Amino acid sequence: MKKLSLEELGRPSVEEFQNQEKHRVIVILDNVRSALNVGSFFRTCDAFAIEALWLTGITATPPNREIQKTAIGATESVTWKHFGTTLEAVQHAKDLGYYAIGIEQTTASKHLNEVNVNDRSMVLVFGNEVNGVSEEVFPLLDECWEIPQSGTKHSLNVSVCGGIVLWFCVQGLRKV
Amino acid sequence: MKKLSLEELGRPSVEEFQNQEKHRVIVILDNVRSALNVGSFFRTCDAFAIEALWLTGITATPPNREIQKTAIGATESVTWKHFGTTLEAVQHAKDLGYYAIGIEQTTASKHLNEVNVNDRSMVLVFGNEVNGVSEEVFPLLDECWEIPQSGTKHSLNVSVCGGIVLWFCVQGLRKV
Repeated sequence: MKKLSLEELGRPSVEEFQNQEKHRVIVILDNVRSALNVGSFFRTCDAFAIEALWLTGITATPPNREIQKTAIGATESVTWKHFGTTLEAVQHAKDLGYYAIGIEQTTASKHLNEVNVNDRSMVLVFGNEVNGVSEEVFPLLDECWEIPQSGTKHSLNVSVCGGIVLWFCVQGLRKV
Repeated sequence: MKKLSLEELGRPSVEEFQNQEKHRVIVILDNVRSALNVGSFFRTCDAFAIEALWLTGITATPPNREIQKTAIGATESVTWKHFGTTLEAVQHAKDLGYYAIGIEQTTASKHLNEVNVNDRSMVLVFGNEVNGVSEEVFPLLDECWEIPQSGTKHSLNVSVCGGIVLWFCVQGLRKV
C-alpha cells in the first residue's frame, strides 16, 4: 500500500472541471462571517462537483486572502456569484425550479439521516456562524434539515456541517 | 417553523456528556499543523459523542487560543490525550483491540460509500494537511478509507473530511 500522487489521483484541470457534469445543487452562504469558512466551502464544492456557490450579504467573496488559505485554488474552478440579500438569492433559485432547504435547527427540521434526496435540483442555505439562516427566507424554504447531535455544544462548525450535508446529497444524486 | 433555542435543543452539560454513552471511536490527529483544524475536530467529536481524541507529534494541544476559536469549549467535554508519535498512539489503540483505519488516498483505499462499519471499535487516523498519514503507521493499519472526489484539488480540508467520516461512522454504530 502506498499513497497516491496527484498524478495518480487523475484530477481534472480547471477547464475539464467546468465542462464536466455537476450535481444539481446550489449552495448559498447566508451572511457567513469567516472567510476561512467560505474558502473551505469552495474546496468542498470543488471536490463534490457542486453546480454553484452563491455568497450573500456580508459573506466574503474572491479574491480574498483568507478565502484563498482554505480554498487553495478552488475559487478558480467553482462557479460562484454574490447577491445583496439571501432573500433575493433563494427567490432566484426557486424561480429556476430548485427545491429550497435550510440547514437549521428548527421546530420543523428533519434529521439528515431521515431525509430523502429524491434526485431533484436543490438549493441549500447555510447560515451565519452565530445567527444561523436568516429568518426572512423561512417562508421560501420547502423544508429544513439538521444534523442530529448529542454533544454539549449548540452546533457544528458551518464548513464541517457543509461537508457532511453535501456528502450526503451527492450519494443520492446523478450528475447532469 | 421557528429556530430552536439552546434550551430547546436540550444539550447535555459537560458532566452529563462525560457520563453518557459514546461511540467506540478514537480519532488520532497525526501531526496536524493547524490549531484551527484541531479545535474543529474537538467540536465534531463533541457533537457525535466520540470516545476520545488523541493528538500526536506536532499537533497542538489545549489550552491553545486557536484551538479555542473553533472548539468553542468542546475541549472541556471531549476526552483527549497527547502521544509523542503516531506510531505509539496507533499501537496503543491496537493493543486495546481497536480496528485501525487510515483516512488516506492510497493504492489500496476503499471508497467511503463502499465500506462497512460493522459496529466495531475503531481508531481513525487523520494526517497532516500536506503530508497526510505518517507512512510509519501503514504496517499497523487494517485498512484505509478515502472520500471519493471529482474536483480539481487533491483533497478536502482535514476537518471537513473528519466531519464526513465521523458522521458516516456514527450512522453504523451503537453507543456503549
